Amino acid sequence: MDSILSQSIVLPLLLLLVSSYASAHIPRLGLQRRASRNKPQQASTLDGLATFYYKQPLDHFNYQPQSYDTFDQRYVINFKHWQGVNLNAPIIVGFGSEGDVEDDISFLDFPIRLASRYKAMLVYLEHRFYGKSVPFGSIEKAMKNASVRGYLNSAQALADYAEMLLHIKKMFASQTSPTIVMGASYGGMLASWFRLKYPHIALGALASSAPILYFDNITPQDGYYSIVSKSFKETSQTCYETIRRSWAEVDRIANNKPEGLMILSKRFKTCEKLNGSDELKYYLDHVLTSAAQYNNPHEKPVRGICAAIDEAARKNSDVIEQVVAGVVAFMGERDCYDVFESGHPDNPIDPFTWQEYSEIVMPIGISGKDKDSMFPTAPFDFNKFKKDCKALYGVSPNPHWITTFYGGQDLKLILHRFGSNIIFSNGLKDPYSSGGVLHNISESIVAIPTAEGSHCLDLQEGREDDPEWLISQRKAEMDIIDAWISKYYADLLQSTQTLGAH
Amino acid sequence: MDSILSQSIVLPLLLLLVSSYASAHIPRLGLQRRASRNKPQQASTLDGLATFYYKQPLDHFNYQPQSYDTFDQRYVINFKHWQGVNLNAPIIVGFGSEGDVEDDISFLDFPIRLASRYKAMLVYLEHRFYGKSVPFGSIEKAMKNASVRGYLNSAQALADYAEMLLHIKKMFASQTSPTIVMGASYGGMLASWFRLKYPHIALGALASSAPILYFDNITPQDGYYSIVSKSFKETSQTCYETIRRSWAEVDRIANNKPEGLMILSKRFKTCEKLNGSDELKYYLDHVLTSAAQYNNPHEKPVRGICAAIDEAARKNSDVIEQVVAGVVAFMGERDCYDVFESGHPDNPIDPFTWQEYSEIVMPIGISGKDKDSMFPTAPFDFNKFKKDCKALYGVSPNPHWITTFYGGQDLKLILHRFGSNIIFSNGLKDPYSSGGVLHNISESIVAIPTAEGSHCLDLQEGREDDPEWLISQRKAEMDIIDAWISKYYADLLQSTQTLGAH
Repeated sequence: MDSILSQSIVLPLLLLLVSSYASAHIPRLGLQRRASRNKPQQASTLDGLATFYYKQPLDHFNYQPQSYDTFDQRYVINFKHWQGVNLNAPIIVGFGSEGDVEDDISFLDFPIRLASRYKAMLVYLEHRFYGKSVPFGSIEKAMKNASVRGYLNSAQALADYAEMLLHIKKMFASQTSPTIVMGASYGGMLASWFRLKYPHIALGALASSAPILYFDNITPQDGYYSIVSKSFKETSQTCYETIRRSWAEVDRIANNKPEGLMILSKRFKTCEKLNGSDELKYYLDHVLTSAAQYNNPHEKPVRGICAAIDEAARKNSDVIEQVVAGVVAFMGERDCYDVFESGHPDNPIDPFTWQEYSEIVMPIGISGKDKDSMFPTAPFDFNKFKKDCKALYGVSPNPHWITTFYGGQDLKLILHRFGSNIIFSNGLKDPYSSGGVLHNISESIVAIPTAEGSHCLDLQEGREDDPEWLISQRKAEMDIIDAWISKYYADLLQSTQTLGAH
Repeated sequence: MDSILSQSIVLPLLLLLVSSYASAHIPRLGLQRRASRNKPQQASTLDGLATFYYKQPLDHFNYQPQSYDTFDQRYVINFKHWQGVNLNAPIIVGFGSEGDVEDDISFLDFPIRLASRYKAMLVYLEHRFYGKSVPFGSIEKAMKNASVRGYLNSAQALADYAEMLLHIKKMFASQTSPTIVMGASYGGMLASWFRLKYPHIALGALASSAPILYFDNITPQDGYYSIVSKSFKETSQTCYETIRRSWAEVDRIANNKPEGLMILSKRFKTCEKLNGSDELKYYLDHVLTSAAQYNNPHEKPVRGICAAIDEAARKNSDVIEQVVAGVVAFMGERDCYDVFESGHPDNPIDPFTWQEYSEIVMPIGISGKDKDSMFPTAPFDFNKFKKDCKALYGVSPNPHWITTFYGGQDLKLILHRFGSNIIFSNGLKDPYSSGGVLHNISESIVAIPTAEGSHCLDLQEGREDDPEWLISQRKAEMDIIDAWISKYYADLLQSTQTLGAH
């Protein structure tokens, strides 16, 4: 039996926060991302594309002698559609996010459509500390060295992208080409922030499923899990009730010593014997949130899980059996299930774990205030988070830095008379949409929410049987970008005619 | 005899580039700034103001353990006009530039007028590495330590200001108070960049005499000195001719060994015997550029110098005697003249020397193309500049960083549909206006140039006998800021009524 999520779709770009079940309240990367990483790389991903490396300074904001150290940062260019220099053909840029840029290239289809439409150069930039863009060669070495991992943060990453894009524009004599940047999830945050910080390099940004408001308590901590619960509840009340009851049942069995954990291990077919019920709950949380986050209109994984749960219930299975059926429906029939297949929580070598502890601090939790939650209460506990961060990395988190540097509070008040050319797209079924920008900010900083959309769906490859609303969403995004580019060409023409030196 | 520039006016905020005469083509701080620093501090500067210190991280863009080191950064608040929290009274902010904040407080009068007008809180922020805001206590220690001075740069300085302003807003429950930042010269650059990078903290910026386009060859290297020459030529053709001829005459005498330098030392009454004609030319350059830069409508120092030169000419003095008369007119009658009173060139302890070598790289030179130049040809030589930088500091300059991070090229094309609420004011008699923004960019990013204005004149204290155009300029600036604030209050009202959480 196949899993519900079709193997052909790579699902990276996912930020997941585990609440109570992990040993710490830690964010981690999602299962799908890692799964895709572990898959043998398709030979075709980079086929026909040109790979380059840029000598990137490790530190853009300091002029210590050691700041002049560089590392080789990868970028990939697709010249297939490019009409060339003289026509000021656009540059479409896919921002790498927290992973190998080859994952981004596989995942991001929308940039290809734009490149084809505009006869554009298509550029993919790999994020520092991921893929082949790791300082000093090895991610283990880089992440274990306190003075090296400090350079892994969003401001440095944006400055990398700025330098690389200026370099590319110069190399291909495309300084006046309109440049549109885009990214998904964390990559989408980077895209919107890049337009705000580097308007002289990017004309516009498409930020798909970018929860830029899930910082510093702008978004209530319950936002994420409330949408997960809602999604299950709307799909099947009985399924939702089963899941809601299952946590206590897991605990009850686990507490039935000495054999409780062995029983759970067997029933869930875990690859290793469980060391505690937290491990299992961590895994269930992962399955449920992933299904909700990627609840796309084709595979509909939430419906798949609930169908299996409800079917088991009709066969008078107990709660555990029902949940096991849901897991099997989502993950596919397997010999065993690795509860840590999405990565161990608090793995200090994982670069995004570091990012989430140090800077991308999203206070996601389950406060207990959402009476419809199907998850056990587990409020975000900053003090514990800080303690864990110190234990892991020896430094404290910087929970206010994102809003200090990029803003976030009173976003409409601030931006409706500042800035331009940003699309924030969100699928409202995506739990991260709770921290997204869902309302228009100005005439040209706009929100495109879709009621049925899931995480980063708009940027994925289109299908023949895509629903009308998804086709419309992509068209709306393209129309807006069309308008940016047309206006820019008109401005450029006027500027070369009349504006003179400045 | 007094000097032409009245003692009561402190003239800091001056960036000066010396061309050929210095031992290297180095930028340095201006004479007046240092003179004002060496003056005993008037007790009154901080009278009635509240001084605070903020625990500032040394490094905002890194999470190495050592980045968590902090230093005490000074800020000063004038509460005299403040109407308090409940009315969302504005916050007016004077940005410290390359000097002690007390100099900025003395110099900047316009913020006081605004504070009084708006019943605003008036805040002055001291720039890192200046005044009392020096990491590790001593500027010698800080500047001699390669891994400490690296933290002295504009991006870190803006992040300091961001953190301090958020802190102040929080401390005084003024999070929704409209905040207007302003600064003069380098401080003006910081103000305009701050509005672009931190629109969520500052509603608008007034950037007085900020040569943000004197980077990366956006402005021709001759811009600065051409205005100086023009100013003298327009004032007196004969005076201009004398100065123009004087350089060769200085060289001729200096080369008349062995006694040539002694003769020059005596004629110019230098405090120390000259070691070479470069020292004298460095000083003359300084006198002439300072006079042009601060050629305000009251003292009119260029006219003063030229009157003295022309008067000496009428008495049949030789060229040297004429120039000496000009120097005396500008500096005042003294026992002797210290050719390095504005600081030795290439003093590695001077923090702005470091800034200009590492980042604020303004390629000012005298290319020989300006046939009206009264200065000897001395093109900006980047290779020499780089060699000097390496010799002084062991690192290379970063001449493209300012335009990478802040932009500059095609400014109107980029910003006329991005950003808002910046005033660029320039006096066209100010040599730095050649690198300033002199044309409107959009409806709310505007230029206010004045034909007769000098460096940062608009922000200085008004006088009864100010000319009409200066009164109008200040009024125009105030009217614009009025409109920003009114619009903001209307937006704020609407936002609290309708915009909801985001």
